[in-house]
Amino acid sequence: MLSLKPGSTNESGFFMLSKNRIKFITSLRLGKFREQHRQFVVEGTKMVAELLHSSFHCEQLYATQGWLDENELLLKSAKPPIEPVSDREMNQISNLSTPPGVLAVAGLPEWTIDDASPADSLVLALDGISDPGNLGTMIRTADWFGISSVVCSHDTVDAYHPKVVQATMGSVFRIKVIETDLAEYLGRISQQQLPVYGALMHGKSIYEPGLNASRGVLVIGSESHGIRSSILPLISQALTIPRVNPDETAAPESLNASIATAIILSALTLGKA
Amino acid sequence: MLSLKPGSTNESGFFMLSKNRIKFITSLRLGKFREQHRQFVVEGTKMVAELLHSSFHCEQLYATQGWLDENELLLKSAKPPIEPVSDREMNQISNLSTPPGVLAVAGLPEWTIDDASPADSLVLALDGISDPGNLGTMIRTADWFGISSVVCSHDTVDAYHPKVVQATMGSVFRIKVIETDLAEYLGRISQQQLPVYGALMHGKSIYEPGLNASRGVLVIGSESHGIRSSILPLISQALTIPRVNPDETAAPESLNASIATAIILSALTLGKA
Repeated sequence: MLSLKPGSTNESGFFMLSKNRIKFITSLRLGKFREQHRQFVVEGTKMVAELLHSSFHCEQLYATQGWLDENELLLKSAKPPIEPVSDREMNQISNLSTPPGVLAVAGLPEWTIDDASPADSLVLALDGISDPGNLGTMIRTADWFGISSVVCSHDTVDAYHPKVVQATMGSVFRIKVIETDLAEYLGRISQQQLPVYGALMHGKSIYEPGLNASRGVLVIGSESHGIRSSILPLISQALTIPRVNPDETAAPESLNASIATAIILSALTLGKA
Repeated sequence: MLSLKPGSTNESGFFMLSKNRIKFITSLRLGKFREQHRQFVVEGTKMVAELLHSSFHCEQLYATQGWLDENELLLKSAKPPIEPVSDREMNQISNLSTPPGVLAVAGLPEWTIDDASPADSLVLALDGISDPGNLGTMIRTADWFGISSVVCSHDTVDAYHPKVVQATMGSVFRIKVIETDLAEYLGRISQQQLPVYGALMHGKSIYEPGLNASRGVLVIGSESHGIRSSILPLISQALTIPRVNPDETAAPESLNASIATAIILSALTLGKA
């Protein structure tokens, strides 16, 4: 590729991305650079539309001419700063194997732990979830069930990791995701006499009557390690999803973490109606 | 790599895999070769243990010496044909970026559509599910909820695709997965006066009383296309997962297909208790 300075145009008359700009955008694949620049990447028409309609700030939108021609209407109302790029440049900056033609750089939100209010509504707390697809799906599912805050342990994968962002299908722009010291946070919740539910292999069935899930925190652990031992004493009510298959030796040991989260949220929010 | 015939030994004294054998094992990544040879690949200690304890036939087990030393007990009872391989050979035949040290080639089961019996219990029918992780998770979840048969449309991803097999976490050895012409199958079910439930955006809430899910079929469509139009007339009861968030413009459009399946199966099987 020719090394042109910003402001140079290619054969199509587009301004071309500088090497430094490409380096900056691709650096946002790593958490340390997202943290340093307080920015993250969003890709695809649906995701960018959700971003533009959200409270998040779109710092810069990179799009191919083909995409711009097809999406005039979307850009008319939002008016983000746009930089046209060639297909080749889009391939360089995209995180996807089939780049969808539009990529936005957005500002990270500045939620604090005080934005997660378990006194008024249920908060989802995630302990050591490492799979980006699982975390993204959990955020999307929480959004469906009216959860507004998700609190993550420091070792949970970053919610603004490109794979998480894409898996949320836009819910990342509606849900307050806050990283914190989970044990410390849950300690404070316990002192406020609010319920701390934990998804465990043994506990009260999620379908038993009498569970009040209109406030408090639901803690989900990782699929391989469960809820860590330092957090277990802070759980005030263990919850379990009963297994239908009666023969323990001929049944799965566990459910996928995002599946378990969905089943519990569904039972707690809708199953009670 | 040196081209040695089967039976040659390498410096560790192991018999080495021939190029043809390596080519055969890696060919099983593709559906047409799985179909041709009626075999598929299983990787990892947990998955291989599940295979050896199942009704499936283990044709050949390839393992590194390290793995064999650590898993003597597992092999004592099952006695599959074992071929020791070097780490380098394992890297060549494995489908995983971090090969777990053991890979089995297993025979495909010979279920027919008559093995799916919706007269006695609920059958899960999948219409055009293309994501291997989603299909694997659905099979695992179905297993948890006591479903014994999953019927798949011809354009659903093959259940014996390596990524599906791994995502089932062993449930693929307990669940009868049968590929068929879904419209034809559901037509026959309808004639038998058995209920055909369909997961749709509008329908009866899964939490409404009076749903009998002890028999019949639950149809799940793909996330992007839903249930195809030729199948819709065969649905006798549309089911929906109510969205808690009341503001349609500020809520997710849909749920992930494997998440929706789990929530519906949970409500139909346990929520009624």
